Amino acid sequence: VLGRTYDNQVCSCARALGVIGERWSLLIIRDALFLGATRFSQFRRSLGIARNILSSRLDFFVVEGLMERRPTAVSGYYEYVLTEKGRELEPVVIALTQWGDRWLAPDGPPFVYAHDCGGDVETVTVCRTCSDEVDIGSVRLQIGPGQPAPAR
Amino acid sequence: VLGRTYDNQVCSCARALGVIGERWSLLIIRDALFLGATRFSQFRRSLGIARNILSSRLDFFVVEGLMERRPTAVSGYYEYVLTEKGRELEPVVIALTQWGDRWLAPDGPPFVYAHDCGGDVETVTVCRTCSDEVDIGSVRLQIGPGQPAPAR
Repeated sequence: VLGRTYDNQVCSCARALGVIGERWSLLIIRDALFLGATRFSQFRRSLGIARNILSSRLDFFVVEGLMERRPTAVSGYYEYVLTEKGRELEPVVIALTQWGDRWLAPDGPPFVYAHDCGGDVETVTVCRTCSDEVDIGSVRLQIGPGQPAPAR
Repeated sequence: VLGRTYDNQVCSCARALGVIGERWSLLIIRDALFLGATRFSQFRRSLGIARNILSSRLDFFVVEGLMERRPTAVSGYYEYVLTEKGRELEPVVIALTQWGDRWLAPDGPPFVYAHDCGGDVETVTVCRTCSDEVDIGSVRLQIGPGQPAPAR
């Protein structure tokens, strides 16, 4: 069941995957973010997926508050517009693309993300205290405030 | 079929999802990155997933070069150790957790990522040319060198 798969995991990564971890989900978000897709037919053309899957994903995004469903000028047609919650998945899409560019793109990146200034955009992990860019492996997981007290 | 779902998409994000987009995949990587899990039984205890699913994910990670399968001192037992390719998924896991912390953690983050220095770790999107942190929505997709020439 959508959004219920990882219910045993008290973890924001698992919760996030409960919302955008289904097949095609993040590519729908990608198209909304970077191709400006809003219409069912645009997503369908770009992704080539079955109508029922696309429909189920878009409806779920609306329920989860990632998209708003708005009527268009054409009666009976709707557009799906990212909310702030949906737009904030941009770094996730960029980080994933970056990994794919590095490891799965032998002919070079099929697409590049460019900043308004023309420069290349990159996701980096930084420390908010020492301001350093953080090396992989120098990050530790600690219990946070949202962790329920142990049952025993 | 694993890794074949998005074959019509010439895109590093889609390729990445072909490798780590299956249910549970990224949580297995999370446990390897941040809990130091290497043994089948460790992943199984942490995730509570069916043996056949876990087994299929680990095998696939080995095939895709995200993990190495090594014999342990106990005959017949193996450990699964992240390669560099697998470890470099760290920013993806952090970016996703960050989004979940912001939007799906009403009681606060269940876990926090801490740098060696003790500070909080965060994923940010930056421009390599102007060095600025990049606002969401100021990034554009451009055709890259790995894009095949159009068929017509």
